[in-house]
Amino acid sequence: MTISNHVFRLAARPSGLPKRSDWTYSEEPVPEPGDGELLVRVLYISLDPAMRGWMNEGKSYIPPVGIGEVMRAGAVGRVIASRHPGFPVGAYVSGGFGVQEHAVSNGRGVTAVDPSAVPLPVYLGVLGLPGMTAYFGLLDIGRPREGETVVVSGAAGAVGSVVGQIARIKGCRVVGIAGGEEKCRYVVQELGFDAAIDYKAEDVRKALKKECTAGIDVYFDNVGGDILDAALAGLARGARIVICGAISQYNNTTPVKGPANYLSLLVNRASMTGMVVFDYADRYGEAAAALAGWMAEDRLRSREDIVEGLDTFPDTLLKLFSGENVGKLVLKVAEDSEV
Amino acid sequence: MTISNHVFRLAARPSGLPKRSDWTYSEEPVPEPGDGELLVRVLYISLDPAMRGWMNEGKSYIPPVGIGEVMRAGAVGRVIASRHPGFPVGAYVSGGFGVQEHAVSNGRGVTAVDPSAVPLPVYLGVLGLPGMTAYFGLLDIGRPREGETVVVSGAAGAVGSVVGQIARIKGCRVVGIAGGEEKCRYVVQELGFDAAIDYKAEDVRKALKKECTAGIDVYFDNVGGDILDAALAGLARGARIVICGAISQYNNTTPVKGPANYLSLLVNRASMTGMVVFDYADRYGEAAAALAGWMAEDRLRSREDIVEGLDTFPDTLLKLFSGENVGKLVLKVAEDSEV
Repeated sequence: MTISNHVFRLAARPSGLPKRSDWTYSEEPVPEPGDGELLVRVLYISLDPAMRGWMNEGKSYIPPVGIGEVMRAGAVGRVIASRHPGFPVGAYVSGGFGVQEHAVSNGRGVTAVDPSAVPLPVYLGVLGLPGMTAYFGLLDIGRPREGETVVVSGAAGAVGSVVGQIARIKGCRVVGIAGGEEKCRYVVQELGFDAAIDYKAEDVRKALKKECTAGIDVYFDNVGGDILDAALAGLARGARIVICGAISQYNNTTPVKGPANYLSLLVNRASMTGMVVFDYADRYGEAAAALAGWMAEDRLRSREDIVEGLDTFPDTLLKLFSGENVGKLVLKVAEDSEV
Repeated sequence: MTISNHVFRLAARPSGLPKRSDWTYSEEPVPEPGDGELLVRVLYISLDPAMRGWMNEGKSYIPPVGIGEVMRAGAVGRVIASRHPGFPVGAYVSGGFGVQEHAVSNGRGVTAVDPSAVPLPVYLGVLGLPGMTAYFGLLDIGRPREGETVVVSGAAGAVGSVVGQIARIKGCRVVGIAGGEEKCRYVVQELGFDAAIDYKAEDVRKALKKECTAGIDVYFDNVGGDILDAALAGLARGARIVICGAISQYNNTTPVKGPANYLSLLVNRASMTGMVVFDYADRYGEAAAALAGWMAEDRLRSREDIVEGLDTFPDTLLKLFSGENVGKLVLKVAEDSEV
């Protein structure tokens, strides 16, 4: 029996916001898994701001997706055929399975996950790369100390929401920056942030001065642009800025806006450091154990924004850039019970 | 007998390049030193890019010079009257004596210097704050390792020339960026840099790619602007950028140009860190000993650009911003033999 696969392949390098015609969406037969391979039915696909960067030509921290290649994405699914000793049929797995219904894998980068511990989408959020990014970016690069003030942008997003909660657990005052009342209420009331700033309604620079009276000790930046500049203007001496992303700049058709206030680094003897989560791959276990522990104690909460239907992928991805999602944006491809 | 003093006091906060009318130049009687004070005849005054920043209103790493106050400057001179037990008449001293012929001081921040060891102006250059800045900025913030590639802008200037020479001493490949053939020849032929890039004649980004085939490991920035962006575009993985100054931006009447390529910090897991030399005051002795030792071995060379006449101060200061000086810019106020 031949299984058919629906798949998004990159068709063009986008200019500005990606559009449906930047991919092809086609039905293809699924190849049989060869020796040492497994076949995965994809259940949930992770949608991440970084995907926009992977569509661009040019040197980055990871090679771009090639034209004609399956669009890269993290996903969780279930093994439906296997000639791999480590992954039997029926096992739940997480890996870079791409934007498609089925994936054949040699098992590299694939890990088993347990849906009885937490719901499967959590393995794409708090216990997935966003959680790892938050954990290592904040603790290894930001190095917050108890009593310090931590500010995070994209505070209601997959990474930012975890950053803020970890900072609270570490005894910091946490101020989130997010777009809109709902997100601001969410991070304060549901996630326990000390304060939130609505960048769509407030002057961020002034609001940061008000909320961070002794200055910002750690700024975790997911957005770049004017908000990075506002944070630079409010640094405490010895501040650490973690550059995790710059979602405000990913769809630019004009040059990236550099942070005009960067000389605040000099005035405040501060640092600005970039991080890429893949560098911490050999420590993911440490982070997952800590994050799962905090979740079990209800000190760390997870929220997913789940959209159904593989074919909605191009439009659903845009929710990240319009700021519509709250929590981890996930595409649901199939019911586990259907598999 | 009353001694008269010629003195520059700040009269206005400049817009753009400072002009003579931003100071008053007047003749005033010198006050008698009180108990615990000394009176210094100033011999040489240090002219530094940072002076431009001190003329601005607003929060910085040091309070601005107030309107009506003597223009702040480091200087060396000779004690001509003293009621301070640590500084007898005839002693040579270095301190923040300001842009004037005579200074009364309570001895704070004043250190004795020895003109038989090195000429007095060297205490304003390699053995003064520029040398300290180069030493701590490069070694503490840049942390170059043997075999790495170090790039420094303002390479023929007081700080940059020392940065490059220390990096050579530490076994690094050193590329200097400077304006004009003469400066480029100077840093390569006289100071032993491996290469120099003339930013006035070359495409800096391309030239850096050519000279730093494995990327830039340490970039020591004195200039900001387009050259900082060019360096960001050429970073090696794990690079460290030292933000020491941004002379290209100090006289802006428009906003500072932020580094558009700052996301290279993310791609390359690199850092950009600001430094202020005053933080290292309790370690100046360590730096001075190392620098003097290298000078004695002729592994570290000093050059001063000495201009005579206190009254030339406003015009001489501008040499820094037009890039006319090679080495440490010093204003000579009096002959030692006259004192």
